[in-house]
Amino acid sequence: MTMHRWSQLFIPTLREAPADAEVASHKLLLRAGYIRQLGAGIYSYLFLGNRSVNKIVAIVREEMNRIGQEFLLPALNPKEIWEASGRWSGMGENMFRLKDRKGAELCLAMTHEEVMTSIARNELRSYKQLPQIWYQIQTKFRDEPRPKSGLLRVRQFLMKDAYSFDIDEAGLDVSYNKHDVAYRRIFTRCGLQFVAVDADSGAMGGSASQEFMVYTDAGEDLIASSASGYAANIEKATSQLASVESLAPTGDGLPELVHTPGQRTIDEVGAFLNLAPVHQIKTMAYMVELPEADHAKLGKLRAVVVFLRGDHSLNEAKLLTIAGGELRPMVAEEIEATFKAPAGYLGPIGLEAAPHPKKPGTLVILDKALEGRTNLIAGANKEEYHLRNVTPMRDFKPTLAADVRNIVEGELDPIDGQPLRLGKAVEIGHIFKLGRKYTASMGASVLNRDGKEVTPIMGCYGIGIERILTAAIEASAATNKGEAYALHPAIAPFQVVVTITNIGDEALLAAGEKIAADLEAAGVDVLLDDRDERAGVKFKDADLVGIPYRINIGRGVAEGKVEFLDRLRSITEDVALNEVTAKVSGQITSTLHNSLSTAGL
Amino acid sequence: MTMHRWSQLFIPTLREAPADAEVASHKLLLRAGYIRQLGAGIYSYLFLGNRSVNKIVAIVREEMNRIGQEFLLPALNPKEIWEASGRWSGMGENMFRLKDRKGAELCLAMTHEEVMTSIARNELRSYKQLPQIWYQIQTKFRDEPRPKSGLLRVRQFLMKDAYSFDIDEAGLDVSYNKHDVAYRRIFTRCGLQFVAVDADSGAMGGSASQEFMVYTDAGEDLIASSASGYAANIEKATSQLASVESLAPTGDGLPELVHTPGQRTIDEVGAFLNLAPVHQIKTMAYMVELPEADHAKLGKLRAVVVFLRGDHSLNEAKLLTIAGGELRPMVAEEIEATFKAPAGYLGPIGLEAAPHPKKPGTLVILDKALEGRTNLIAGANKEEYHLRNVTPMRDFKPTLAADVRNIVEGELDPIDGQPLRLGKAVEIGHIFKLGRKYTASMGASVLNRDGKEVTPIMGCYGIGIERILTAAIEASAATNKGEAYALHPAIAPFQVVVTITNIGDEALLAAGEKIAADLEAAGVDVLLDDRDERAGVKFKDADLVGIPYRINIGRGVAEGKVEFLDRLRSITEDVALNEVTAKVSGQITSTLHNSLSTAGL
Repeated sequence: MTMHRWSQLFIPTLREAPADAEVASHKLLLRAGYIRQLGAGIYSYLFLGNRSVNKIVAIVREEMNRIGQEFLLPALNPKEIWEASGRWSGMGENMFRLKDRKGAELCLAMTHEEVMTSIARNELRSYKQLPQIWYQIQTKFRDEPRPKSGLLRVRQFLMKDAYSFDIDEAGLDVSYNKHDVAYRRIFTRCGLQFVAVDADSGAMGGSASQEFMVYTDAGEDLIASSASGYAANIEKATSQLASVESLAPTGDGLPELVHTPGQRTIDEVGAFLNLAPVHQIKTMAYMVELPEADHAKLGKLRAVVVFLRGDHSLNEAKLLTIAGGELRPMVAEEIEATFKAPAGYLGPIGLEAAPHPKKPGTLVILDKALEGRTNLIAGANKEEYHLRNVTPMRDFKPTLAADVRNIVEGELDPIDGQPLRLGKAVEIGHIFKLGRKYTASMGASVLNRDGKEVTPIMGCYGIGIERILTAAIEASAATNKGEAYALHPAIAPFQVVVTITNIGDEALLAAGEKIAADLEAAGVDVLLDDRDERAGVKFKDADLVGIPYRINIGRGVAEGKVEFLDRLRSITEDVALNEVTAKVSGQITSTLHNSLSTAGL
Repeated sequence: MTMHRWSQLFIPTLREAPADAEVASHKLLLRAGYIRQLGAGIYSYLFLGNRSVNKIVAIVREEMNRIGQEFLLPALNPKEIWEASGRWSGMGENMFRLKDRKGAELCLAMTHEEVMTSIARNELRSYKQLPQIWYQIQTKFRDEPRPKSGLLRVRQFLMKDAYSFDIDEAGLDVSYNKHDVAYRRIFTRCGLQFVAVDADSGAMGGSASQEFMVYTDAGEDLIASSASGYAANIEKATSQLASVESLAPTGDGLPELVHTPGQRTIDEVGAFLNLAPVHQIKTMAYMVELPEADHAKLGKLRAVVVFLRGDHSLNEAKLLTIAGGELRPMVAEEIEATFKAPAGYLGPIGLEAAPHPKKPGTLVILDKALEGRTNLIAGANKEEYHLRNVTPMRDFKPTLAADVRNIVEGELDPIDGQPLRLGKAVEIGHIFKLGRKYTASMGASVLNRDGKEVTPIMGCYGIGIERILTAAIEASAATNKGEAYALHPAIAPFQVVVTITNIGDEALLAAGEKIAADLEAAGVDVLLDDRDERAGVKFKDADLVGIPYRINIGRGVAEGKVEFLDRLRSITEDVALNEVTAKVSGQITSTLHNSLSTAGL
């Protein structure tokens, strides 16, 4: 191998990032000379960026080869197979479309269920050929409406996408679990701290789905997780609540009016009555626009009233799932017309609830946090009055009780009771029990053991290659004031930079050359900074480009010493010249191997 | 690593290829389960095909990393950079174009001069940053008018494209030569027999260019080469001719009429006068349509007359270069009107030739094979008469003498005098001194040593990744009756297949498993054929999928023997069980290493 010398390489570092770069990874990828923008959401990967991407690809390939077979499918897809699956129109403006010289319509594939299923349809005949796991690492195209955040939201990117074909659900469980393990190994080897979140499979129509997420403020999802391994998207997250001692009853213990002139909000009523919000019922009224199928039975618009604990907030996504249509808050006039109650004093008692979600009437939902509570304060459906002693189920019956609230940071996870962390995150992978949507619509079938034609069941599984890089940079930048980052030695473009502080000094030059050559002989991926630059410039560049380990060849050489920086552990120490190779290569080897064994993978 | 077991893998071999598959590689790639067609010129690479492609990519990357830096550039290109270079319209219908959701025009890049030059323009400022060699291995798109021949002419393919930037011509020579060596190493390591052909750089406007070609009937180029290393496209090939003893003069040795009633062709005249074609002058008359720039001086149409040796044929491409415009044969009426001579009896004497190619008049070309010849037979420009004793330069003066003939198989190369091989070939790579076309048109410049702005000079260099695979298959299929092929162990999807002839026999199963595991431990890439199939089916499949070495685990196991097939050398032999691992891995290692050392690379 030829030694990599910084002086010969194209590493165009920048002192400042362009003004339009917002998130840390975007700024740093540009400043470190990893990427350059060619157009909106379109980037060129330069030497260092491509080198890091190649290392990630190699890890993904190695782990995927343990469970499946690699293919390479065309980006250019004929319209026909997308019409067969029914997605030609469904993909809308997100899919790039074009015509060839003969006028035939093509698209640039965003995903490859269609191609994979067409191969399965044409080639698989018998249960004996199952299971199959087919994957590829390939360029995807997507006409993002708002490309932004550097490599986080782009129009062309690399994806590892995999597809499994099984004879039945039990087979799919096995294929799905294999991917779960492979993904954990991949992300762990790349040095990422991730959480696996139960995701809503939503529009894709499957039955189980998990997203692999990395906490970062650059993310667009909000997730909750705990040390026990519990993790969920905010739209699905639940928690254990600390028990609350209810108020003592007043009077005969039955609901009684209390005059609350001008006190409408939870805070106002709480202050006025000197009660914590936790003892109050928060009432929220919505109108839901129902889908056409429900019009005959339930009407076009339906009133939805939600009762929450006073200190809780509503999660609209959770409510949406129950309400079954588009939601908007009711305006005061609607509240007054529908419930004959003033908007600020709406409450549960006297409100007529539909007896069942599928029966007509107001859909009244009691958040589960109010179950079992007694003697609460609630609106009295009467101007300037609230009620004391309100006890759900005794004093009023909702249509149903359900979890519709947002969990709060620090609450305990519902399984092991560990405190929850709540934060923004970015998705790096997704595994998904897809079902028979594509095999059925495209007519793939095999003969089962009994000679009967059956439709194979599919799983699909994706990893965003660049997402691994950006997530790693975001995570590291957060601990480096956004000015630098250090990548895990498995995915850094180089593992060690040997910085000769003054190339004019023959002794330093010789020492640097020797250490770099020794490290390379020990299998370490080394960059030798032999540029004719000031030491300060070199140190800054080295930190900027994300190399985790640095050896400074400076004046200490005269006393047989060099300086070793472990940027992952923030340690700087002097090491003897004759020990540095063993020390650094040992540190790298243990860092590469520890992560998997620590994670029990 | 997990053992690769045929029973678990997706290797859909076919007994027959689809009827529309014509060339051997197309048929075999389909039959071997390497690829499947998705659309016209669009193929999915299945497990084996992708595995082979990955191995080729790894070799290309390894060799290119010795001389340059890998990038990865977007396939999606904005119109603007192609307009800057002037190629947006120039690429015509060959380039796929599309619009994004906002109506912005994009294309799918066929090549990346524009993107690379835009990076150079934005980032390079000084001669100190030169030279640079930047390459990528990436998917290219091209809207082929007639996709065909499987992977030989497709609309989406993988290409290694490289670009060099140098301060001056001497620098470009170095970069160009580095690529020459790298390409020779790559093709040699892939096991290809190739020739490097001096190519016409033609429309690209450069100054030197070389194509790497592999002889195969599936190719679309015609090339000539000899054992001395001489190689040229038929449009440029020249040869040494065996000397010909001219005829003795008749009469006074000056041209004399001979009556040749009804004898118009070379063969007719030869038979009639009992003379070999080598003693005749073949006359061919063309009309050339000149470009507008020449109209004022030379007219719109110009007559071109070529004199060839009777047994030679005209190479129109050579003539085109000299004539400087589109050519068509003259019709008889034009010949008679222009030269006052009957079409079948046109000859050199009395024909008025332009004194210089750039002066008006008939462009008369004497093929160089006629230089120095005497006493030839030629048309007399008179109905039913030829002339004897025609001696060029004494009896007539052409506008110029030039090489315009097709060389013939077996003639001697012009340098070392080795016999020439003439045949169809396919291009696998191309290196090219591009010049300053893109750096100038896109405004890239750097400061030279003297602080003056200069335009860097570029080279561009391409390798068709799939072409390496198809060329290797075509070459091998030619020696296997088109029914099978054996790839070099460097690029075969597996190096060895261990075929258990009967998996019902425990002893065979155990021996096969052990040999496969031992080979794998020795670093050999093994496929274990553990399918419950007849031995004949397994042998046929193994040959079909191109694996170069096979170990048959059969009845010989009882006597401690297995059968080893070296398909590259067509050797079959019995090997002792305890020697087979060493023997096979030794054979593979030496095959992998010998090629480079034999080639002196």
